[in-house]
Amino acid sequence: MSRHFHEELEALKQTLLAMGGLVEDQIRRVMRALLDRDDILAQEVIDRDRQVNAYDVEVDKRCVELLALHQPAAGDLRFITTAMKIVTDLERIGDQAVNIAHRVLELNREPPVKPYIDLPRMAEQAQHMVKESLHAFVARDPHLARRVCAADDAVDGLRDQIFRELLTFMMEDARTIPRALRLILISRFFERVADHATNIAEMVIYLVEGHMVRHTLA
Amino acid sequence: MSRHFHEELEALKQTLLAMGGLVEDQIRRVMRALLDRDDILAQEVIDRDRQVNAYDVEVDKRCVELLALHQPAAGDLRFITTAMKIVTDLERIGDQAVNIAHRVLELNREPPVKPYIDLPRMAEQAQHMVKESLHAFVARDPHLARRVCAADDAVDGLRDQIFRELLTFMMEDARTIPRALRLILISRFFERVADHATNIAEMVIYLVEGHMVRHTLA
Repeated sequence: MSRHFHEELEALKQTLLAMGGLVEDQIRRVMRALLDRDDILAQEVIDRDRQVNAYDVEVDKRCVELLALHQPAAGDLRFITTAMKIVTDLERIGDQAVNIAHRVLELNREPPVKPYIDLPRMAEQAQHMVKESLHAFVARDPHLARRVCAADDAVDGLRDQIFRELLTFMMEDARTIPRALRLILISRFFERVADHATNIAEMVIYLVEGHMVRHTLA
Repeated sequence: MSRHFHEELEALKQTLLAMGGLVEDQIRRVMRALLDRDDILAQEVIDRDRQVNAYDVEVDKRCVELLALHQPAAGDLRFITTAMKIVTDLERIGDQAVNIAHRVLELNREPPVKPYIDLPRMAEQAQHMVKESLHAFVARDPHLARRVCAADDAVDGLRDQIFRELLTFMMEDARTIPRALRLILISRFFERVADHATNIAEMVIYLVEGHMVRHTLA
């Protein structure tokens, strides 16, 4: 393959990492908006989703160009088709940040239910998984990818803990039901962020090792 | 392009349609399992997800082979890369049927909350959207794809209606809370089925018309 091809492949990786950084930042900001009850920050997260979408279009275009102009063989071909799938997961992680931001705006119109403990931990872990899964992809590192898959169990554990705790709140005081429901939905959105990171990690393992771990794990 | 290429492309479409049929059937069955409180049927949906996953691997492999062996140009190249993305959405629709099946098994251990009216309608509409989105893809039909995107609003409307109704149940009788929560989650899983179908439809519009409708609608 030409030097030109490798430069373009490198540019593709850098664009994906930049998109990943933006998406991670969206998760960080929307959690901050929830903790600080900050409407302006929540609205910023919603507005910045355009940038995530612009990256989605750009990565997709770069991939198709690489395929059309260079007709890469085996390994590089799979890398590029995997990038096209991964960018869709990244874009949808961005959508989850937007979903959460809308719930934050609703919650901010009512008094707080309780101090958040598990939700920030869940957000942090999901965000970390997104970062690691992308690094596993650009480095074609299946060991790092496996660590991401393993981390998903901890996120699911937090989701169940949050669910049980909020259920207790609702049963004890019916007035908390609407707010508790929104928090349950938010925890499910963070869970989906972690699920997308897990999907990315599973695709990395498939890319490198050639077998479909996403249908054998869990 | 060779006759061989066109035969393989046709085989790819048929495999995708078969996978779509299976996934639609999973949605139909899991709704039936909910209505009839049928544990065996719910368990069958969970077990049949292996078949959905086998299709996922097969479609992915066919696509990479088509790209590697025939190095298709412009239109066909985009069609195949789109197929690789669409198959991921189909596989995740299958996952939603499994998610719902697990909630059905939990609900069956408790007395029924109320007769279901909106949930079956939501399931039926989501299932129809899946079917139409795939047909729009294989026929490269942007008009049909636009109808799918438009149908998503009705599904979101049903989701909100279900949410409001179950919220009322919970506020009036705290004993219904755990069951009502599971039904809310089920409605969100059906919503995700419709979202995946919408994603597919948006990709079809992009494929045919070359602009990214998924970032301009909604």
